[in-house]
Amino acid sequence: MPKVAIILGSKSDLPVIIETIKILKHFQIDIDVQVLSAHRTSEKANAFAKNAEQENIEVIIAAAGKAAHLPGVIAASTVIPVIGLPVKSSTLDGIDSLLSIVQMPAGIPVATVAINGSENAALLAIQILSLRYPELVKALKEYKIKLGNDVYEQNLYVQKELEKL
Amino acid sequence: MPKVAIILGSKSDLPVIIETIKILKHFQIDIDVQVLSAHRTSEKANAFAKNAEQENIEVIIAAAGKAAHLPGVIAASTVIPVIGLPVKSSTLDGIDSLLSIVQMPAGIPVATVAINGSENAALLAIQILSLRYPELVKALKEYKIKLGNDVYEQNLYVQKELEKL
Amino acid sequence: MPKVAIILGSKSDLPVIIETIKILKHFQIDIDVQVLSAHRTSEKANAFAKNAEQENIEVIIAAAGKAAHLPGVIAASTVIPVIGLPVKSSTLDGIDSLLSIVQMPAGIPVATVAINGSENAALLAIQILSLRYPELVKALKEYKIKLGNDVYEQNLYVQKELEKL
Amino acid sequence: MPKVAIILGSKSDLPVIIETIKILKHFQIDIDVQVLSAHRTSEKANAFAKNAEQENIEVIIAAAGKAAHLPGVIAASTVIPVIGLPVKSSTLDGIDSLLSIVQMPAGIPVATVAINGSENAALLAIQILSLRYPELVKALKEYKIKLGNDVYEQNLYVQKELEKL
Amino acid sequence: MPKVAIILGSKSDLPVIIETIKILKHFQIDIDVQVLSAHRTSEKANAFAKNAEQENIEVIIAAAGKAAHLPGVIAASTVIPVIGLPVKSSTLDGIDSLLSIVQMPAGIPVATVAINGSENAALLAIQILSLRYPELVKALKEYKIKLGNDVYEQNLYVQKELEKL
Amino acid sequence: MPKVAIILGSKSDLPVIIETIKILKHFQIDIDVQVLSAHRTSEKANAFAKNAEQENIEVIIAAAGKAAHLPGVIAASTVIPVIGLPVKSSTLDGIDSLLSIVQMPAGIPVATVAINGSENAALLAIQILSLRYPELVKALKEYKIKLGNDVYEQNLYVQKELEKL
Amino acid sequence: MPKVAIILGSKSDLPVIIETIKILKHFQIDIDVQVLSAHRTSEKANAFAKNAEQENIEVIIAAAGKAAHLPGVIAASTVIPVIGLPVKSSTLDGIDSLLSIVQMPAGIPVATVAINGSENAALLAIQILSLRYPELVKALKEYKIKLGNDVYEQNLYVQKELEKL
Amino acid sequence: MPKVAIILGSKSDLPVIIETIKILKHFQIDIDVQVLSAHRTSEKANAFAKNAEQENIEVIIAAAGKAAHLPGVIAASTVIPVIGLPVKSSTLDGIDSLLSIVQMPAGIPVATVAINGSENAALLAIQILSLRYPELVKALKEYKIKLGNDVYEQNLYVQKELEKL
Repeated sequence: MPKVAIILGSKSDLPVIIETIKILKHFQIDIDVQVLSAHRTSEKANAFAKNAEQENIEVIIAAAGKAAHLPGVIAASTVIPVIGLPVKSSTLDGIDSLLSIVQMPAGIPVATVAINGSENAALLAIQILSLRYPELVKALKEYKIKLGNDVYEQNLYVQKELEKL
Repeated sequence: MPKVAIILGSKSDLPVIIETIKILKHFQIDIDVQVLSAHRTSEKANAFAKNAEQENIEVIIAAAGKAAHLPGVIAASTVIPVIGLPVKSSTLDGIDSLLSIVQMPAGIPVATVAINGSENAALLAIQILSLRYPELVKALKEYKIKLGNDVYEQNLYVQKELEKL
Repeated sequence: MPKVAIILGSKSDLPVIIETIKILKHFQIDIDVQVLSAHRTSEKANAFAKNAEQENIEVIIAAAGKAAHLPGVIAASTVIPVIGLPVKSSTLDGIDSLLSIVQMPAGIPVATVAINGSENAALLAIQILSLRYPELVKALKEYKIKLGNDVYEQNLYVQKELEKL
Repeated sequence: MPKVAIILGSKSDLPVIIETIKILKHFQIDIDVQVLSAHRTSEKANAFAKNAEQENIEVIIAAAGKAAHLPGVIAASTVIPVIGLPVKSSTLDGIDSLLSIVQMPAGIPVATVAINGSENAALLAIQILSLRYPELVKALKEYKIKLGNDVYEQNLYVQKELEKL
Repeated sequence: MPKVAIILGSKSDLPVIIETIKILKHFQIDIDVQVLSAHRTSEKANAFAKNAEQENIEVIIAAAGKAAHLPGVIAASTVIPVIGLPVKSSTLDGIDSLLSIVQMPAGIPVATVAINGSENAALLAIQILSLRYPELVKALKEYKIKLGNDVYEQNLYVQKELEKL
Repeated sequence: MPKVAIILGSKSDLPVIIETIKILKHFQIDIDVQVLSAHRTSEKANAFAKNAEQENIEVIIAAAGKAAHLPGVIAASTVIPVIGLPVKSSTLDGIDSLLSIVQMPAGIPVATVAINGSENAALLAIQILSLRYPELVKALKEYKIKLGNDVYEQNLYVQKELEKL
Repeated sequence: MPKVAIILGSKSDLPVIIETIKILKHFQIDIDVQVLSAHRTSEKANAFAKNAEQENIEVIIAAAGKAAHLPGVIAASTVIPVIGLPVKSSTLDGIDSLLSIVQMPAGIPVATVAINGSENAALLAIQILSLRYPELVKALKEYKIKLGNDVYEQNLYVQKELEKL
Repeated sequence: MPKVAIILGSKSDLPVIIETIKILKHFQIDIDVQVLSAHRTSEKANAFAKNAEQENIEVIIAAAGKAAHLPGVIAASTVIPVIGLPVKSSTLDGIDSLLSIVQMPAGIPVATVAINGSENAALLAIQILSLRYPELVKALKEYKIKLGNDVYEQNLYVQKELEKL
């Protein structure tokens, strides 16, 4: 069973990753969720990153806000792909989280998704896992068809709303 | 042999991806470089994305500037992981490229790296490939040690420069 | 009868285009509203754009938020004028939508209006249509007079409010 | 013969509109270029806008930088479509020009293109004109094919450059 | 009696200028409030600016939001000092209003105050008027002392609040 | 007993510094809170800064919003370390406060913390004081352990929440 | 003879105010230029502001960059109108200077002009002075006509340049 | 002898800290300069931070650019005050560096100075050290007088330059 770790900088980031978890579960991915702070529990964060490989973790999703160092700090201590999920916080609308995650210097990439982009963090993890688990390719294609059908449903809804005008 | 496609929005993006190519070659990745525009050759871009899987492409790196739609447009038509490389252009210092790539709506993720983050686009591709090609894990670890040693060399250089003060 | 298509990236953009629809109806423009995603239904979006001309669509308004590729993707596959309407979303206050729409690379223009600029998207469409339908010129001039009169009404309102101070 | 007016806020904006002029000439559009300031020659600017219709001008392109009021001021006094071309100036990288042009309040739209987006200002004008001059539709399609072919040439160039690596 | 005109781009700007009006009244300034749009009533706005001098208006305060051209357009047609008051609107938090007002090109200054800086628009007008009405100098100094005393009151309040901790 | 002064630009900044005060009290720091405006009570602010040393103040925390000059003005008249706490105000989300505080010209540093970074202003003050009061080193280390434990508690909370999914 | 003081935060701001000085001299304004730092010579800056009135200074122009406190600090200690001229410095393109000057809190206005807006700082000063010196009204009107004529010259130049195309 | 460590994220940051070093040497501070990367040599960076106290380091200055995690990562593992010096890099003009350093979450402060604010990083370190080394208070006061005198020299220079006009 494929395995993804989700790391949160603080419990306040939980609402943002609920959707991430739901999608990963939908794809039957084994998940391990941890609150770990790059700053308040830096040793544990480093230890987590170093042990991730032998814990059979295959992709790591790290969500953090403000000066969001967590994804980069995790990426520094592992070669497992790290997905950075910038969390919108109470000031600056998430641009600080985004820049702190995406503007990584050469050598240590973080695969960054949109601010509060919970679903995409999960889907990107699954796309990456699909290199090792070919059955996920089929599941992803079905999901993509569902997304398209959902747009079709949205279209019907909009047509009905417009008739009311 | 692992295979990565690199898509450029225009030939003016070539200097930015030279480093990407060098790192992929260093890791002995088979690469396929294409200039494809999401707007000027939209059909070819879509066809490329749809055929990528049967062309055995395993990761796609798409570099583009300004209203950089290329990575998202490619990602729309494949489930292969797409890495977005925002290119700094002549106005706005690359913030337009970054936001156009990273702020993807739910459903179609693009794994975004830093503005002009050529090396990290390559390294992220290799990390993703390492799920299928375990030998890359070892190569990545060696590369990471080299990066650390390079910092050590930089330190020696700085110490010498400081003696001149 | 002049014909305008309004394309929404998602049903959540509906509130923003209600005003667009009302103004177009006021000017007796035939409208065709579709939810189409540049990413989730890319083929349909491309097909829509390619067929627009033979569907007698004369101007296209495309509303989208975040990494808003829809207007550009539509514009890539047609020579019909495309008006881009950036939608303010839950993060970044719409600046991502604006830059993703307006900063189009050379070759494929999108006529961009203000963030959430629903009325102006409609009025711009009508101004463009007026090149083919001269009767719209007169209607636009009357509308402009009405706008001026409305400012006059606002002035009266303000004078009354100030008397209360 | 279709007719486009190009209005510049100052002679320093000339380099930005050279490409605009070339493309319009390529499409055999009659052009009328004027330096007119919304602030320093406000009466002339208003007079120009009011007379544009009887001068047979069908589309107006207005280029301006900084607190770029020219496109909006012109649009206020005509119902002819006005294309706003934000010019990058010596400070703020053009974001001031862009926002001053695109964020027009309800009632008076300006069709805004990218900062320094000279080619797209011309192409958008031609797309609008094509509603009245159907022969331009064919010319635009040929131009679009040429754009695609140019990407093909760029691709060949890039392949050759890569062989040198 | 000194005379100040306050021009609003729309009645929605009224709440922002209430404080402006109160302060001007406190200083016994004669005020003339008008809703005038640079775009929807451009002729009236120009006429207002041209007649301001013979209407004995000595300072003009112009409040506007988004692509806020009103202060600049007024300033273009008079040599009376124009104070620009950028209004925060529903998107972009007022940065568009600020840049559209403050970044005026050489030749036509607008004296810009803070976004929603209602009080300062009034006080700046009074400081300017004080060059002609020396009695205002004394009134301004008293007001400044009152401001200082108010800080003293705030300090007492804070001390009391802190005792509750 | 170590002594820290907390200076507020206005009583509206009080909620932001409540947490600052609580942490300083937890570390048994003597605190002196003053509302002082760099502009409305500039003489008092200067006098405060000049007398701070003989009042045995050892670190100054200055909180202010908008064009936040208070920290810099205080720092100009003392060599006591000044910590600047940018307050988020009603427009621009605090970026104006941050830049007005952190971008100090050479010669007069202000130690800037995050927008609304109340806790960190206190903790930085205590870290600085620890150079003179070594007992604070121990207290800071204990606090840091508590922070780590708190993350552990947060982790337990998140695990429980996830079980509910 | 009317009198304006120009205050610079540092000698590096001199190039920016050269044009300010030239325009003031052209209008035969008596000028007093001083390098004064809000931070490095805060006492002198305060003393300057307090004495300005009895030195017969009628308008103050203060130019500064980065966390540009000088205009606000001067304005705090006088009721003479203060014009703030934000100087573009080596980072952030002048947005820090602009926000630090324009976002003044209620009570102490600074009349802000564009980043590096040297000419407008002078012209605004003259407009303000014209309330006391009516002869300046005539001079300003002549200057405005000259500005208009200059646009006319620019237009001729552009027409000639275009003939070369 | 007081001791400050200066940590650079890369040798490319050396030019920025030369001035920092010169000022620290002028104040006879013992300095230890190290190139250490939060990402490429994360273990060494952590080890450095943990050992800093027993190496008698009393203040740490950490300079870094882009997603600048170094100051925060160092601060996570020590209670010694950490000064963050954001370095302007090749994109985004240093705003990414600034936000990544200053927006630290609660618990782990970094005392941030201006982008490329080399001198202020040194002066802040000395102000902090002065709590333990009272002789530095006197040296800082002399330095501040020198800064004031330098402004006086600048003033003389400007007066001479103006005579040439």
